[in-house]
Amino acid sequence: MKLAPLLDNLAIELPSWAFGNSGTRFKVFGTPGTPRTIEEKIADAATVHRLTGLAPSVALHIPWDMVDDYAALGAHAAEQGVRLGTVNSNTFQDDDYKFGSLTHTDKAVRQKAIDHHLACIDIMAAIGSRDLKIWLADGTNYPGQGDIRGRQDRLAESLASIYQHIGPNQRMVLEYKFFEPAMYMTDVPDWGTAYAQVSALGERAVVCLDTGHHAPGTNIEFIVAQLLRLGKLGSFDFNSRFYADDDLIVGAADPFQLFRIMFEVVRGGGLDPNAGVALMLDQCHNVEAKIPGQIRSVLNVQEMTARALLVDTEALADAQDNGDVLGANAIMMDAFYTDVRPALAQWRADRGLPGDPMAAFAASGYQDIINAARVGGTQSSWGA
Amino acid sequence: MKLAPLLDNLAIELPSWAFGNSGTRFKVFGTPGTPRTIEEKIADAATVHRLTGLAPSVALHIPWDMVDDYAALGAHAAEQGVRLGTVNSNTFQDDDYKFGSLTHTDKAVRQKAIDHHLACIDIMAAIGSRDLKIWLADGTNYPGQGDIRGRQDRLAESLASIYQHIGPNQRMVLEYKFFEPAMYMTDVPDWGTAYAQVSALGERAVVCLDTGHHAPGTNIEFIVAQLLRLGKLGSFDFNSRFYADDDLIVGAADPFQLFRIMFEVVRGGGLDPNAGVALMLDQCHNVEAKIPGQIRSVLNVQEMTARALLVDTEALADAQDNGDVLGANAIMMDAFYTDVRPALAQWRADRGLPGDPMAAFAASGYQDIINAARVGGTQSSWGA
Amino acid sequence: MKLAPLLDNLAIELPSWAFGNSGTRFKVFGTPGTPRTIEEKIADAATVHRLTGLAPSVALHIPWDMVDDYAALGAHAAEQGVRLGTVNSNTFQDDDYKFGSLTHTDKAVRQKAIDHHLACIDIMAAIGSRDLKIWLADGTNYPGQGDIRGRQDRLAESLASIYQHIGPNQRMVLEYKFFEPAMYMTDVPDWGTAYAQVSALGERAVVCLDTGHHAPGTNIEFIVAQLLRLGKLGSFDFNSRFYADDDLIVGAADPFQLFRIMFEVVRGGGLDPNAGVALMLDQCHNVEAKIPGQIRSVLNVQEMTARALLVDTEALADAQDNGDVLGANAIMMDAFYTDVRPALAQWRADRGLPGDPMAAFAASGYQDIINAARVGGTQSSWGA
Amino acid sequence: MKLAPLLDNLAIELPSWAFGNSGTRFKVFGTPGTPRTIEEKIADAATVHRLTGLAPSVALHIPWDMVDDYAALGAHAAEQGVRLGTVNSNTFQDDDYKFGSLTHTDKAVRQKAIDHHLACIDIMAAIGSRDLKIWLADGTNYPGQGDIRGRQDRLAESLASIYQHIGPNQRMVLEYKFFEPAMYMTDVPDWGTAYAQVSALGERAVVCLDTGHHAPGTNIEFIVAQLLRLGKLGSFDFNSRFYADDDLIVGAADPFQLFRIMFEVVRGGGLDPNAGVALMLDQCHNVEAKIPGQIRSVLNVQEMTARALLVDTEALADAQDNGDVLGANAIMMDAFYTDVRPALAQWRADRGLPGDPMAAFAASGYQDIINAARVGGTQSSWGA
Repeated sequence: MKLAPLLDNLAIELPSWAFGNSGTRFKVFGTPGTPRTIEEKIADAATVHRLTGLAPSVALHIPWDMVDDYAALGAHAAEQGVRLGTVNSNTFQDDDYKFGSLTHTDKAVRQKAIDHHLACIDIMAAIGSRDLKIWLADGTNYPGQGDIRGRQDRLAESLASIYQHIGPNQRMVLEYKFFEPAMYMTDVPDWGTAYAQVSALGERAVVCLDTGHHAPGTNIEFIVAQLLRLGKLGSFDFNSRFYADDDLIVGAADPFQLFRIMFEVVRGGGLDPNAGVALMLDQCHNVEAKIPGQIRSVLNVQEMTARALLVDTEALADAQDNGDVLGANAIMMDAFYTDVRPALAQWRADRGLPGDPMAAFAASGYQDIINAARVGGTQSSWGA
Repeated sequence: MKLAPLLDNLAIELPSWAFGNSGTRFKVFGTPGTPRTIEEKIADAATVHRLTGLAPSVALHIPWDMVDDYAALGAHAAEQGVRLGTVNSNTFQDDDYKFGSLTHTDKAVRQKAIDHHLACIDIMAAIGSRDLKIWLADGTNYPGQGDIRGRQDRLAESLASIYQHIGPNQRMVLEYKFFEPAMYMTDVPDWGTAYAQVSALGERAVVCLDTGHHAPGTNIEFIVAQLLRLGKLGSFDFNSRFYADDDLIVGAADPFQLFRIMFEVVRGGGLDPNAGVALMLDQCHNVEAKIPGQIRSVLNVQEMTARALLVDTEALADAQDNGDVLGANAIMMDAFYTDVRPALAQWRADRGLPGDPMAAFAASGYQDIINAARVGGTQSSWGA
Repeated sequence: MKLAPLLDNLAIELPSWAFGNSGTRFKVFGTPGTPRTIEEKIADAATVHRLTGLAPSVALHIPWDMVDDYAALGAHAAEQGVRLGTVNSNTFQDDDYKFGSLTHTDKAVRQKAIDHHLACIDIMAAIGSRDLKIWLADGTNYPGQGDIRGRQDRLAESLASIYQHIGPNQRMVLEYKFFEPAMYMTDVPDWGTAYAQVSALGERAVVCLDTGHHAPGTNIEFIVAQLLRLGKLGSFDFNSRFYADDDLIVGAADPFQLFRIMFEVVRGGGLDPNAGVALMLDQCHNVEAKIPGQIRSVLNVQEMTARALLVDTEALADAQDNGDVLGANAIMMDAFYTDVRPALAQWRADRGLPGDPMAAFAASGYQDIINAARVGGTQSSWGA
Repeated sequence: MKLAPLLDNLAIELPSWAFGNSGTRFKVFGTPGTPRTIEEKIADAATVHRLTGLAPSVALHIPWDMVDDYAALGAHAAEQGVRLGTVNSNTFQDDDYKFGSLTHTDKAVRQKAIDHHLACIDIMAAIGSRDLKIWLADGTNYPGQGDIRGRQDRLAESLASIYQHIGPNQRMVLEYKFFEPAMYMTDVPDWGTAYAQVSALGERAVVCLDTGHHAPGTNIEFIVAQLLRLGKLGSFDFNSRFYADDDLIVGAADPFQLFRIMFEVVRGGGLDPNAGVALMLDQCHNVEAKIPGQIRSVLNVQEMTARALLVDTEALADAQDNGDVLGANAIMMDAFYTDVRPALAQWRADRGLPGDPMAAFAASGYQDIINAARVGGTQSSWGA
């Protein structure tokens, strides 16, 4: 199988918050061993990387992951075998942001939100992070509650204020989301809006595509292809969904869709060394175990990437040129239906990794150790 | 306008929890004056009724609204001018229910959930409540996580165990929901499932239709018509939505849909004195003020009911019989486009109610009083 | 692989109309070799069966497939190696049905539609068909155009009139559809309505589930499980969709969904010899070649059934009982990710069938033969 | 009511094809009086304008409306009191376009499609038309059938070839559509793609927003606001929908949505004399009468525009600035709930138009005249 060398370029960033508790508005179920600190989250993330070779970096969420000494935090990560990655801002949990942050009608609130992002940029400098990821909860619940156009103009202005502080080796990554928590209108609801906003800023402003943030039926791989074509696909937030922003394990809901997405990533050069497309996870573990949940997700990304790499692109182009609908589709499906798991076990073995990372984690005793060690304190969650 | 006498039959039950704090998984915004106790919630609900004449009863949620002395609670309500209504059970916030309650694979957990419902029936007896409403969070997040068929069978068995304790003047009302918090499959996802389950139990088992619990595009008034035809429409949970279970103010997202729903309620006899169709609200106030939010909702139900009552049903039947598509539609629209607000202000004046309940609430000073009085303690929310 | 013996029970009925031209409201593209007669359609269907061993019967559509001599038609089919199956009625292409057929306000139109179904029952008797399948285009485009409740009552009455003519070895199969061609309300929009209607008739009235006839996000395998549990799953119309009733090749849009559906079919006993669950295709070939399109579809059903049969149900039940979310899901996915194609090639070889039916068809020269032979006349389509 | 002067700027273009027969893939119902020629279509459109004062122009569809003498056609229109407007191209009904037109892999097919557009530009010159509207059926039905990225690149190239022929007073208007007739991917599926494509061309390339061409739940007024903000909202295709591209009477499915859309049009200056936002209808009359169907639609646009003009924008801005969610929403709803029909009847009376155009049409005898006159020939439809 011709998986190399592109498969070796696959590097998936883990979100620190995936190791804390999460849930729905109805209930958050806690579990033993949940990290209390960012250091413990990093230890868990590093465990995923140690077993899979796929997850060399960890994204931080500010203020959840704030520490006094970022150099020490970076050193801690390095000791664990990973590095610190994207910095995610948070403008949705302060009472001041009830009616918006970067889009708020009150200049003082907007400035507070801008300042928060400047503080994030400082943290990026401290840890050597490239990407500032902005997901906004900004939006409204009722027609008339906000001025759609005015909010968009204020968003542009606020983003410009932040962008001018983005360093030459840094990027601003703007995420869009169809709905939630705003229920009538979100200020960045679709890729078109994100694209229009970042295009107005400059080269170092790009778009984040969260696979769970689209309307029902949206052809996500089309957006992947389009953003790559336009040079604006900055990063992915991977997860899966049946209904809304379900934040399930990547590939769990529709593995064929993940395959098609990864095929377009490859097609558009997204795995090339200098592509600048960051692959990240953003999923919640509401009922499943957290660390193996992350292992499962990164393995799913790898498996679907491997299948995507198996597509016979020359034969595909021929079939497409000849209007051979069934033939072209069969070439795609042949790759998707091929069981790549033995080849990937070998890929791992070749690199000194366990053939079956899920089994290796279960056998490692790591969960028992953290269950015993992490007693007392406050378990991390979205609240802290 | 021929609004009487059916309009006088309109009685909308308020949920106690609408007066507590609520939000999304991202953030719950608190507000001054939020009730700390069920007694305070009842006082707020009674205020809505005092100003609108539309909301004579309050639904309880157990265990959130548990008290030691239900007779005293009933007396408190009566003093305020309202009565206690539907009892809602809760099997979604105990760690034991992480993988289901009435459908759980573990018989002990199922029995615990059954016992909770029997305790609710005891409370119903104590307060003279007719309806036990069951909304289940039961479901799964991943294919394979649960046995769809086995869960359905266990659900039937558990419901039967509860139903045999339902008194001769009581009813079990089973609510369905398309998704959330379960993200792959809910055990009662649609009206068909609720209907099949309650039909197997008996006459006093009926269905609750929450207007926010359907797939995109679902024609809800059709379901209203069908359940009324089948004699199984027990109650409504009114709210509105643009995307998912947004729980917005009733009629806010699509007033024309609310009009069509109320038209079918009237058409199917749902406002007749013995119809047995309970109209309730179930909405969250994430960003808007709570008490006026409820006032707005009950007024919206009344306004759309009034418009529905204006439809010239004889002319409509004629147009329908003659295949006059545009004529029939115009008759519906003529009623919908009629501004009934002056007539309803008169309706209120005739009954000694304020012509403009929203303005009356603002002028009443009630909010200031509770803001000052309700200091300290723990504000009510979904958590308590 | 433990595919036998259930896999041998797999028999998929082909629709005669799949071999004619079809398209969208924008354009129907014709192709050489398209059948002009039902005899030619049967010949094409028999070709699919000869190459796959999976498609032993052909469904008729009346009046499209009416002939003078049904005995001769049956003999023609038998010569070709297939038999005639389900009879599908058509009440959507006569001007009289513009505003409904079985639900029409005009008794004369309803009687005409009823009589059409009685004529279909006569044809069933003539060809030894078990199932009368009823899909209704009945519905309305605008609020007010029809009386939802009255239409439902008339539907019940009309169906009862037809049902009393259904013989002791015959069945009435009622299909539901979310929307199209009616754009506001269809008279049988969901499984709940179909279930309520057939339950009122009797044991020989059952439901047809078309996999493309649901709202976005609907969990179809849940409905499969539920209808099997209720003893009312009469048949499938298989196809696939990304958006609406796209009628694409089975499994093309979401093979994992097809796998989950087939898993529930197996789980609920739907492949047992006396299950009474008819598996049919109902897809359109708008741009792809017709005969290989049907071959692809029946192979897809077989492949996903084979994968479903590989699920280790004992281990799955254990994981479900233990709340092992990731473990249970992994068992499902392990079956889905297994490449069954070599085993199925062997299955075919064991039965004297070509290992690769798609290649065998291409090599057979059949298409060239019919292209040359079927010149002149009127190509079959939905119109005739 | 402060409807003037903006209300007087309202001018809605009628599509010639709305007066011909249309339907679904299942059936096209013909009706007496249907035009056979473009001249007859124009006569019908002029009747709508004569009765409403709202529809001064007619859009042509090429080749359906091709004539030998465009000067004569323009003169005919002028005699009738209307003018010829937008020219719509058609690249979806020729066998050559089965696999695409402007995006086809075959350069010759692309050139044919480009040449068709150049011919349309010639017609525009002949009739003094400003806008060339391009809606493409281009897309694919199956994953792999086409190269998403390559198709997008070819689209850009083809559009550029056409754009260079667009005159200084002409515009290219690119329409997007979520799905149909392509069922897996359309080449211009969303406003983002249309925006990116026209932005690459230049100032005279703009976007057409068809209100029925979005994913379920899409906030269309947001897109209106955004495209106006970006200076790229060229035109509307108005219709309404419950499910897909239902093409129902404008405002029929969700009048509140139409109100919100018109509010954003006003908010963004879209009714200003030089706004360059063309308002057009694009709906099908599958079961309703055609001419009154168009009258109903233009009246609906006018009514919702009038309501939008009633919004107290100063009070609204105050409420928005103060975070008064309920107050801001109430200001919107107050305008929406106001019955503007009497004021609009007066508006018409002031201009010598009939107070009730629907009744005036019925009383005019026009339908009887055309029913009698238009006998023989071939009724116009999408096919010709």
